[in-house]
This record gives sequence, structure tokens and C-alpha cells, in this order.
Amino acid sequence: MPNRLVSSTRHYDQKLQKILKISARIFAEKGFHRTSVRDISRATRMSLAGLYYYFSTKEELLYLIQERCFVTLLDRWDEAGNPAMDARARIRLFAENHLSFFLHNMHEMKVMAHEDDSLTGGFNEKILVLKRRYVKVIMDLIEELQRHENGKGIDLRVATFSLFGMMNWIYTWYQPKRDLPLSQLMEHMLRLYFLGIIEGAKARAPWLTAASTGTAKDTFSLWQKQS
Amino acid sequence: MPNRLVSSTRHYDQKLQKILKISARIFAEKGFHRTSVRDISRATRMSLAGLYYYFSTKEELLYLIQERCFVTLLDRWDEAGNPAMDARARIRLFAENHLSFFLHNMHEMKVMAHEDDSLTGGFNEKILVLKRRYVKVIMDLIEELQRHENGKGIDLRVATFSLFGMMNWIYTWYQPKRDLPLSQLMEHMLRLYFLGIIEGAKARAPWLTAASTGTAKDTFSLWQKQS
Repeated sequence: MPNRLVSSTRHYDQKLQKILKISARIFAEKGFHRTSVRDISRATRMSLAGLYYYFSTKEELLYLIQERCFVTLLDRWDEAGNPAMDARARIRLFAENHLSFFLHNMHEMKVMAHEDDSLTGGFNEKILVLKRRYVKVIMDLIEELQRHENGKGIDLRVATFSLFGMMNWIYTWYQPKRDLPLSQLMEHMLRLYFLGIIEGAKARAPWLTAASTGTAKDTFSLWQKQS
Repeated sequence: MPNRLVSSTRHYDQKLQKILKISARIFAEKGFHRTSVRDISRATRMSLAGLYYYFSTKEELLYLIQERCFVTLLDRWDEAGNPAMDARARIRLFAENHLSFFLHNMHEMKVMAHEDDSLTGGFNEKILVLKRRYVKVIMDLIEELQRHENGKGIDLRVATFSLFGMMNWIYTWYQPKRDLPLSQLMEHMLRLYFLGIIEGAKARAPWLTAASTGTAKDTFSLWQKQS
């Protein structure tokens, strides 16, 4: 891979940013595999030669979009994350960062979700490293929260990916004119995530008792057939 | 559209079922647009002429897969749903139905998520009708639950699509050998959905008080900056 690929300054290149933004929109609309570099050329009004200064293959372009998303998310997190805050507040910050980024970059969100397996080889591995780092941030926070705040023993992977599922599914249904604005969307989603949709005290009766008498997470009788 | 398309007996046709199953796998692996009817022919070991007895275009094939998913889900719901149960138990049943169907049909799940906007015209409209009917089932249940069980005033669309998000995101992360088996996966996910990940009583302190003094859902001070 040529050295320019990993230069940390290239992300500041306005032109590259424009290419990535426009390409993400086209990938989101047509799908990665149906998009040609010629389509990108037409939409960006740049020549093929001009484009190939920024990337060597269409796959590299997809890689650059995904890389930029994860690097931006991680950078924003590094700036915003305050280790002095409690886990709940940091989870809120993480979700705020994630949601606001994607609500302002819905095309990128769709591309990340749909073209998750379109990268191969080295590109794929580099993205996996970033993705694992990003998932680990929130997984560690959720684990901390569950440890310190009387967690309900929900499997950590279920707890982690359910949060991502709630947030990432947004691109399929969210309509800015119809739905809550970002700040409230986040409030409602995090309320649901932290406290559930119904009043715990009332709902608890047979459930948490059963769960709290068990020692392993497998002993929940919560959803067993009531026959 | 030829009449055979809407015949209710065609779903019982073993051969069609086999075609749909194999096509869903190939669409999931290669993407709808990159798959040719010739690919389907090779994988099903059927001639093109044989295939075209069952569908007229590749788009119709995608439509038949999506239609079959929604019709199956709705049929299973009609059989399982018991109006005498309380809303929480019916939501559990709905989620059980949805999750078990998709965990056993992960390719279909991916195709439903990724090719959501690949259908056009009449095919698209028919699927939208089924999808709306399906979403309305759970939306009505969640509304009922929130009304009867001291709901926390979470926006109904957020509450509904967060549940779908949690469930539908599974195809991106679930590994049968690593993760909880279906019954426990469901328990944990529904626990999270109904009660949240942390102990309500403890977490409630400044939050629910603030929420319960407000009259509109907009008055939650829950996630406002603590500065």
C-alpha cells in the first residue's frame, strides 16, 4: 500500500473529504458493488485521473470512508470522554457521540451497516482493529456500570450490541420531520436502555426475585413458559 | 401480474420454498444486485426455464422472499398471539416469534435488512402493506403496555423501533457457538427492554422525579448537561 494512505494529514484534505462524502452518498443510494468510479467522477466533477490521486481502487475508497468514520468517532470520544464521570454519564456521552455523528452522516451509517463485509484482506483487517477498539470502549463502560450500579446481570455482549442495534437501526426509520429531534431521541433511547420501558418496581415482582436467587446468569426464570 | 403470483397455495410448493431459501442465501452473500438468475440456476440445479415458472424477474424473486417472511411472521403471530394474555406476555411472544424466526433464517434477515429499498413499484407497495401491518401489531402492544403498566413515557416510535433494532441487529454480531442460545438471548434482551440494564430504584433518584413532575414528554431533564 503506498505510504500516502496512512498519512495522518490526508484527512485534513478538503478535497478528499468532499470525495468521501459524495461517495458515501452514492454507495448508500446504489450500493457499493453497483457504483463505478465513473459514477464518483460524474458526481464529484473530478476526472478519473484526479480521483486516482486519492485512492487506487474503489475498495480503497470504501475503506477510507469506513476508516474516517471510526477514526472520527474515536477522536471525538477521546476529546469528550471524561474518566472522572461515572459510567452512566460516560455511556450517555458515548451514545451522544455515536448518534449525533450518524444522524448527521446517515449515508455513512448506511454504508457502514450494508458494506460491512465488502472489504477484504488488509483493508478489512484494519477496519476490524478500529471497530474492535470502538466496541471495547462501550463494552468496558457497560461492564463498569453493571458492576457498580446493581446491574441486572444482562449478558455483556447482548447489552453492548443491543445498544448498537437500537442506535444503528435508526437509519431505517428515523424521519427528521416526524420524529423527535436528536437530543430527545437520545434521551428516550437511553432512558429505555438504562431503565426499560416499564416501571421497574411494579414489574419486578416475580422476575427479579427469581433472578436474584440464582447464582448464574442462566438461572433467570424470567421468560420461561408460564403454562 | 399473472394470477399465480397471488395464489395462496404456492407457498406450499416445496420447490418454490427451496428456490427461495437458496436465493436468500445467495442474495445475503453476494447482494441482490450482483446476483444473476444464472447464479440461482447453478445453485438450485434448475434450468432457467424451470426457474422462470416460479418467478418472472429477479425482483419478483426478492419480493417472494420478503413476502414469505412477513406472511410467515404474521401467520405465526396469529397462531401464537393470545388476546387474553397481558401486554407484556404478548410482547414476549412477539419477540420470541420474531427472533426465533430470524435466528433460523439469518440469510433472510440480512436480505430483509439490506434489500429493504431494492423493490420498486407494486412489489414495494405490497411489502410495505405487510410491513406496516407487522409493525402495527407490536406498536399497539407497546402502547397498551405503557398505558397499563406505568410506562415511562418513552416515545412510541422510539420504543417500537428500538426493539426491532435490538433484534434485527443480531445478524451482525450473533455467533451461535459464542453467544447465548436463543431462549436465553431472548430473556436477556427482553429483560433489558422491559427493565433496563440497571436497577431502577437506585437509578431513579433525580431522573424519574424530574420526569414525573413534567406534563409533556419534552420535559425530561434526564439527559441534560450536568455542567
